[in-house]
Amino acid sequence: MEVKDYLRILRDEIHSTVFATVDDQGLPVARVIDIMLADEYSIYFITAKGKEFYQQLMNKQYVAISGMTSGDGSLSKKAISIRGNVENIGEQLLDKVFEQNPYMLEIYPSKESQRALEVFRLYQGNGEYFDLSTKPITRHSFIIGHSDNIEKSLEYGYYINEKCVGCGKCYTTCPQQCIDMTNVPFTIHQENCLHCGNCMSVCKYKAVEKR
Amino acid sequence: MEVKDYLRILRDEIHSTVFATVDDQGLPVARVIDIMLADEYSIYFITAKGKEFYQQLMNKQYVAISGMTSGDGSLSKKAISIRGNVENIGEQLLDKVFEQNPYMLEIYPSKESQRALEVFRLYQGNGEYFDLSTKPITRHSFIIGHSDNIEKSLEYGYYINEKCVGCGKCYTTCPQQCIDMTNVPFTIHQENCLHCGNCMSVCKYKAVEKR
Repeated sequence: MEVKDYLRILRDEIHSTVFATVDDQGLPVARVIDIMLADEYSIYFITAKGKEFYQQLMNKQYVAISGMTSGDGSLSKKAISIRGNVENIGEQLLDKVFEQNPYMLEIYPSKESQRALEVFRLYQGNGEYFDLSTKPITRHSFIIGHSDNIEKSLEYGYYINEKCVGCGKCYTTCPQQCIDMTNVPFTIHQENCLHCGNCMSVCKYKAVEKR
Repeated sequence: MEVKDYLRILRDEIHSTVFATVDDQGLPVARVIDIMLADEYSIYFITAKGKEFYQQLMNKQYVAISGMTSGDGSLSKKAISIRGNVENIGEQLLDKVFEQNPYMLEIYPSKESQRALEVFRLYQGNGEYFDLSTKPITRHSFIIGHSDNIEKSLEYGYYINEKCVGCGKCYTTCPQQCIDMTNVPFTIHQENCLHCGNCMSVCKYKAVEKR
């Protein structure tokens, strides 16, 4: 899938997500926020100037978003998590937000009551897609916009190096059995890894590293 | 509703929630995590020692949680957000977690693969319940455990003081029409307020304060 497909899932299939920010004491805050619009490169949401959420967005210009599709039971779900930089674009696109999300008129019915609202855009960041319905689970990483730091974040995970002797101890503790033992050094299927760390903690040869 | 009822909704009706923490750079991180157990005073969840999430929990001993019931459309949902202190209780209750959430065996099938898992307990904090299906929306605050700081947080919101002259300008901009104009000074129905801040921004008499 391409980035725009993940953003479309967020807007259309998940829609109601959780947004996380950080308060003045450096502690996390989370609340449900809907994804109002999405285009090829960004997602848009709104909030009101009087909210703590608004202040926290303005302070850090950064947000973490996570949500999942609905479905029967945790193992039928697809989850998307994104974190990155946001900018306030004021009343730009506010009409379009209400056009495409008419239920918002139930909450902010009059133009007078909408005066507190401003639109924010997430334009750069990195994301992860989890499909819990596959076995093993599937994980994909993606990037929104461009940034060297963000591209580095795609490497995050556990990797087996040249010290591997092929003993297979790691495989016995891997919940997803996603270690390929065809060749030594073994390799970890990054797209199935849960990042539990079992392989690293049981390897006597220090052949597993965390990046 | 009592605290245990909110915690029960989190465990049974919402179950899959988003947990927010803060990374080494002071930026928010969010991911989907299930609520494994709940009792009268706390909720329990698990994670694996190899995950960044685990490290972030150990560093701050604090988490923000938010989730919503499923339902057709954003305005049929009930949302709960909680933030507060967590403690690592190790493997205590891990057997009970798997007993009551047998689907977790699909992800961590063997005892060997479960060795990375530890149980965390949120034992103290404050929460908000939003019912978006009522009109106006309904908001309730609640406390888990005891702490003076946390009890102060229940006052958070907008309040009208003695400077109110009863002009009614605030009412015209209130999206929820939750300002009671029976007596001067007017009062804000805290349980319906969206915290948009419109009333404060339009009041010429500085009669609206934010606490």
